[in-house]
Amino acid sequence: MKIETVDDLRKLRYGIIGAGALGGFYGSLLCKNGYRTAFLMRSTAKDVKEHGLKINSAWGKWEVHPEVFDSPQDMGVCDILIVGLKTISNVSLKEIFKHTVGPQTIVITLQNGFGNEEYIESMLPDNSATPGISRVIGGCSFICCWRENSTVINHTAGGNIEFAELDGVERPRIKAICQMLNDMKIPCAIKSSPADVRWHKLVWNIPFSGLGLVAKADTAAVLNSPELRATARRIMAEIQMIAKQDGIDITDKFCEWQFERTESMGHYKSSMQIDYECKREAEVEAILGEPVRRARKLGVAVPLMEMIYGAAKLLNCLNIQDAK
Amino acid sequence: MKIETVDDLRKLRYGIIGAGALGGFYGSLLCKNGYRTAFLMRSTAKDVKEHGLKINSAWGKWEVHPEVFDSPQDMGVCDILIVGLKTISNVSLKEIFKHTVGPQTIVITLQNGFGNEEYIESMLPDNSATPGISRVIGGCSFICCWRENSTVINHTAGGNIEFAELDGVERPRIKAICQMLNDMKIPCAIKSSPADVRWHKLVWNIPFSGLGLVAKADTAAVLNSPELRATARRIMAEIQMIAKQDGIDITDKFCEWQFERTESMGHYKSSMQIDYECKREAEVEAILGEPVRRARKLGVAVPLMEMIYGAAKLLNCLNIQDAK
Repeated sequence: MKIETVDDLRKLRYGIIGAGALGGFYGSLLCKNGYRTAFLMRSTAKDVKEHGLKINSAWGKWEVHPEVFDSPQDMGVCDILIVGLKTISNVSLKEIFKHTVGPQTIVITLQNGFGNEEYIESMLPDNSATPGISRVIGGCSFICCWRENSTVINHTAGGNIEFAELDGVERPRIKAICQMLNDMKIPCAIKSSPADVRWHKLVWNIPFSGLGLVAKADTAAVLNSPELRATARRIMAEIQMIAKQDGIDITDKFCEWQFERTESMGHYKSSMQIDYECKREAEVEAILGEPVRRARKLGVAVPLMEMIYGAAKLLNCLNIQDAK
Repeated sequence: MKIETVDDLRKLRYGIIGAGALGGFYGSLLCKNGYRTAFLMRSTAKDVKEHGLKINSAWGKWEVHPEVFDSPQDMGVCDILIVGLKTISNVSLKEIFKHTVGPQTIVITLQNGFGNEEYIESMLPDNSATPGISRVIGGCSFICCWRENSTVINHTAGGNIEFAELDGVERPRIKAICQMLNDMKIPCAIKSSPADVRWHKLVWNIPFSGLGLVAKADTAAVLNSPELRATARRIMAEIQMIAKQDGIDITDKFCEWQFERTESMGHYKSSMQIDYECKREAEVEAILGEPVRRARKLGVAVPLMEMIYGAAKLLNCLNIQDAK
């Protein structure tokens, strides 16, 4: 399977694994732009089959009627899989890949937090087509979107994707994918490593998702509280230090820009906060636990992150017990 | 009014302002030991008048039938007032003092957090009997107790009191009061200043009450979580730094002893955590806000306390809105 240009990409079959708000949003753009795209959905498959998927986006409104499957067996092999699954469901990926990964399939993960590339890679068969080159591409989406119901997704801000080859090499396939996304008006950038992408994303995610859960604070509440705003900036400084130790430079300017862009979000709730409020398991380990463990390994003190992680772990646990 | 010995104190009339768990516990000990003691209670006055007050204590069980009043007018002037009121009700003190404070009345506050001595002093008339000497004595009670219902108080651990004259002078009156309490088997110590007493108390209160509210963590949950346990110790280190800047030495040994004594409490919930769970206003400003403001004044960075204060303020506010 040769992937060097957008034309090559036009011939492929795409699979969205975990077509929630994020997967559904990008999947709908693939559909809308004529890419053959299959959605793997669970509880919402029936509704989407029947009514399609409506997107109310900052980029306009559209509706798509994709191929929808509720089992990986029925979905079958795809050429490019885009994983938007909540990390708490990562355990289901092994079974999913058994049916959807062929000899040449590439897997792009846009999931939250740390540890997904490694985990996914460990479950995939060797890439016989391109030996020595990982099948996995690690990415992040910087987006404000959420599901209104089974067939409606709201998107209010952001939407850009950053991704990287695991070995950091800018090969033709990743350049072509970036071009494809840009052609669909999805801002997209290639970075030097998944860690580079992820630490930059976590600069927003750890403080705002973390305080969202622990302090029941939407983005406006964090910004309006002098103490929480200062805390958010201090957490960013902790991440800057870990990232630095991990070889990645996150500038103060980038951190300060996070506040500017968050101002424009209004009363936005992170997915972690929404999950908690809906008494669903929140992605505590991927977003907070893994970064804290990496900080420890790198010998960086992160007292604020550690407090948030400890509190979130306990709150999440009590919340799930409560829901049962 | 001469107060130099326990015999002098035997002749006086005592008033318990805010006879909740703490006020009720110490008030019952005064009663039991033959001191003339009036309780000012609000919603529970009727029940206590009728059935008395039962104490299930680590020091034994007893029952008392004190003078109970539901209005400060009826209660009238007392010689020594012991304030156990929640700090959130401090605003009611002005009206209470109007009727209960006579020309020579002394006020001992055992309330939580910072700022009470100054607030109380500001509302009292000048002390004409002993000009230049404050009517107020600042104290703290280190105790695990809570109200089971309107007429039953449980006490499982602690109970010692530390207090100090506002100017730090160990005059006969404070020595006599300390002796009186010791005679009742209440461990009691005189310290060099209310700030000395309070910072030492807050070493426990800020981490355990704060995390109790923010992480829904009882004492056992804090101790069992590596992250929250480390956080508690780090918060203590912040308090050590503020106290040091305030001229008070809190030793590492004292901090570490907090963990030992907390181990023995089991699944204890701080009053702040109980208030939050019962959807009552929690003492966020006295226990967390004032210490943070003092840290700022003293130029000490307290990022963990600031995060907890910011989160607790918001959670408390949402909680009260919720209860309405």
